[in-house]
Parts: sequence; C-alpha cells; structure tokens
Amino acid sequence: MIQVTRLDLADARLLLDGAKAKATEIGVPMCIAITDEGGNLLAFERMEGGKVTSITIAIDKSFTASGAKKATHEYGAAAQPGAPAHGIGSAIGGRLMVVAGGLPVMAGGECVGGIGVSSGTPGQDREVAEAGLAAFEATL
Amino acid sequence: MIQVTRLDLADARLLLDGAKAKATEIGVPMCIAITDEGGNLLAFERMEGGKVTSITIAIDKSFTASGAKKATHEYGAAAQPGAPAHGIGSAIGGRLMVVAGGLPVMAGGECVGGIGVSSGTPGQDREVAEAGLAAFEATL
Amino acid sequence: MIQVTRLDLADARLLLDGAKAKATEIGVPMCIAITDEGGNLLAFERMEGGKVTSITIAIDKSFTASGAKKATHEYGAAAQPGAPAHGIGSAIGGRLMVVAGGLPVMAGGECVGGIGVSSGTPGQDREVAEAGLAAFEATL
Amino acid sequence: MIQVTRLDLADARLLLDGAKAKATEIGVPMCIAITDEGGNLLAFERMEGGKVTSITIAIDKSFTASGAKKATHEYGAAAQPGAPAHGIGSAIGGRLMVVAGGLPVMAGGECVGGIGVSSGTPGQDREVAEAGLAAFEATL
Repeated sequence: MIQVTRLDLADARLLLDGAKAKATEIGVPMCIAITDEGGNLLAFERMEGGKVTSITIAIDKSFTASGAKKATHEYGAAAQPGAPAHGIGSAIGGRLMVVAGGLPVMAGGECVGGIGVSSGTPGQDREVAEAGLAAFEATL
Repeated sequence: MIQVTRLDLADARLLLDGAKAKATEIGVPMCIAITDEGGNLLAFERMEGGKVTSITIAIDKSFTASGAKKATHEYGAAAQPGAPAHGIGSAIGGRLMVVAGGLPVMAGGECVGGIGVSSGTPGQDREVAEAGLAAFEATL
Repeated sequence: MIQVTRLDLADARLLLDGAKAKATEIGVPMCIAITDEGGNLLAFERMEGGKVTSITIAIDKSFTASGAKKATHEYGAAAQPGAPAHGIGSAIGGRLMVVAGGLPVMAGGECVGGIGVSSGTPGQDREVAEAGLAAFEATL
Repeated sequence: MIQVTRLDLADARLLLDGAKAKATEIGVPMCIAITDEGGNLLAFERMEGGKVTSITIAIDKSFTASGAKKATHEYGAAAQPGAPAHGIGSAIGGRLMVVAGGLPVMAGGECVGGIGVSSGTPGQDREVAEAGLAAFEATL
C-alpha cells in the first residue's frame, strides 16, 4: 500500500477564498471548484452572477488538473490544430478540459488536488485560479 | 416577465453550516449540496470522510428537491412498487432521486432552492438536511 | 492536508489472483476490477468466458464499494421495495451497484480500495470477491 | 457463421508487461488497457503515478484501435482541420480517440485486439504501446 497526501476541506476553504477575493477585485463573479488528488469534488461555490454553464466547466477543469497533474492551459496549447493532442478535449465524455482556468495544487512535489475556475475569459479564469493557489501556498 | 426569489451564496452558507453542525453532532461526515430554485448548484462541501459516491448523490438530491419543489423522501414513498410513480427514480439519467436527504428550501410560500445530503442512512441524511433548513429558516 | 492509505498495483495483483483462483475452483470465469480508495480503477481482468456485460458491472461494483466504503450486497438489502434506499440503484448514472459482488478493502480500520466481481450469480460474485479479499488480508 | 481469432488474457499479459517495461525505462508511469477484437476490455493496469484522467483515455484508445482496426494517431492526422475526418473525435460520446497511444493488435493479417496507453505525451504513449505490441509479436 502507499501513502498519499491530499487536500482537506480547510485547504479547500483557503483556495476558494483566495480565488473569490481576486474575482471580486477584477469584478468577474466566478464558479470555483476544488477537487482532491483523485479528481473527486471537495468544495464548490458559485458566486452571485457566476454562469450556470460554468458549474460543470469549473468542476471539470479542477478534475482535469488534479487527475492529470497538469494545468488545463497546457492542454490547450497541446490541443491546437496540428499539435499532438489535438482532439483530446472531447475525451472522458468531454470532461477533459483544454481551456485555461484549471490548475493542479502541488505540495512537497506531489499533486494533492486541483482548482478549477470558470465564468470569465480563459485568462481571467486562470488569474483567479492562480490567486486561489497563492493563498493556499502562503500557508504551507 | 416575472420576478423570482432565490437563495444566494450567503444563504447557502447558512444551510451548509447548519447541516454540518448536525452531521458532526451525530458523527456522520456528509456530502452536502445547495442548489438554487432552478436546480443549479450554488455550493457544495464534502466533509472529511464523506463518501466519494455521495458527491453526485447529494447534488442530485438537491437538484431533485429544488427542481421539483418536493422532498426526495416523498418521491421515495410514491416510487414504491404499486405506487403511481414507481420507476421515476431512473428518470433524467438517474438524477431524479427517490431516497431521503433532499429537501426544497421554501420562503414566503415559494421554493427558493434546495439542500441535498448523502453519506449516512437515508434517515440520517434527512435529519442533517432538516438541520440545515432550520438554520436558514431561523434567519428569515 | 491529510494522509490517506491506498492500494497499489501489487496489492491489486493479490486481490485479482485470489479472486481468480476461487473463480477457477468454482468453474465460473469472472470479470474482476480493483479500485483505489477514491473509486478510481487500478486494475481489471476479464477471464476467458467472463461476460462482456460484466466489464462495466465489475468496475462499478468496485467503484461503489470503495467510494461508499460499503459492500454492494448491503445496498441490495437497503434497496428492496419498502426499504429506505429503494431506488438508489439508478443513482450516479446507474453506477451505484446494489447487487452482491462489490466489497470495500479495509486496512487498519480504513477503506483503502475495493474489489468488484461479476459474471456469476450474485452469490458467486460475492464468494469470489471475498476470496480476493482473503488473499490480500493474508499478507497484512 | 464465422470463426474469429482474438486475444486472450495470457496475450494481454504479454502486451501489458511489454508496455510497462518501456514505461519504466522512460520513467513515465502509464495507464495501459487491452481490448479484444470486439473492442471489449480484457485487462487494465494503472501504474503507480499513472493519471486518473488517463484511465478512461487508455481504455478508449484501445477501444478505438481494436474496434476500428486502426491506430489512433492515424485518426489524429485525419482529424486535423481541413482533413476529411475533422470532428470525428467527439463521436461515440467522445470515445473515438484521435490522439496517439492506441494501436490495433494484428495477427495473421487480422485485427485480434488493441492496446491503449495514456499518461505521457502522445509520443510517449505511442512508444509504450509499440513496446507492448513488440513483446506480443515476439511470441507469434
């Protein structure tokens, strides 16, 4: 058997609050999802004005980033026409997200979970996810 | 056009915290989901030890209760063999939940959202959902 | 953050081989799936003669048992007409299995994974899953 | 009626072990799936560190390669913008994989199964699948 380290709900709170503060600062209400290292949902919040369509997108961005230990914007680059992973975005029933806004949460060199953000532009989603990550990492 | 009243994220917090307090009291860590009156997810938390299989079940109990304006245990009674709604539980790709633990959130005679709880027995799930509801209603 | 213990591929091998030995002994070729404690597939084998329909059933029995930390035959009892969880079997897109053959794998009082077996009668499936579990537990 | 030739579990073992040896050699833990000529899963292993998101992707690469008797990277080329199969990647609920790493297993001029690999780059996935294939073919 092996030992793994994963986010708990208190960690999820740090990630959510860091992301929400940035979303408020830039004036874009967001859907924000936190998953554990197995890709399973830990916490979710839809801010007032967050998009209904972004509920699943935020959850799936976080699922992708934690399950693949890789930022969704990296998949975006690899999935462009002509690039080797073109077409990967429809995998897993469309859950494999290739749009920015999903980040793995790393600690001690291992992936311990993920954060996924959706409702703004991909750049805004990523910025807000990074703010959540920074708030969490500040406590390590 | 019409005006609708719905839960916001601050309300969801009241519901979540009321439910979590009861879950802690009875010693059963839960998955808890809050949806708005359109059945769309507002907030979700999986307590430490909450079941992975209960993530979707909690969300779907809340979806069912808010979307149908009806407690999931009422569907449970109506879905027994010989009863008029027998078989309804596989509707909507299995999202229509007929097991206790999903409650509509009512205010001023209208359904403004829902709460769904899963990880314990159906009776425990319902008890925890009712505690969330009570915490919210105490603020009305 | 928290630390969790989970099955690795060597453990999965023990579970698979223990189950296959029993399946061979009773003359019923099986589909056998092993999941980790997050419900994610670790290993799978379909023995010669195992049913094609049992591929998904074995995987979902293991998912259910590991994700819910509960044997699928326990859900079966709770899901009978008149029982409180009647109708739960169509939850999670039908992945929540209420037929015998899925067992959580426990170690040190915690759920570290699951085993799911399908192709025989529910009783045979459970017997084979138990044999897999016994082979693993003998090494603890 | 006709006779078909297909992989059995012993063949699957050869394919898996060949692939795992290469994955270990290049230092990229993989998810590896083997399907029979009907596209149905025969065996699966997730190596320690293999991606959770790659479970379904590996299975679907093998499904695609065995079911279509064609390597997934060939679909990748045909699915580029302007090419005749552009958009095919979302077929079958997204199961039709157009990213390298899925190979048909041929014997005597016929397709007898498939191998699908995921967790590395598409190039690494293909390299590991080819190593599995070579290990099997060495025994023919």
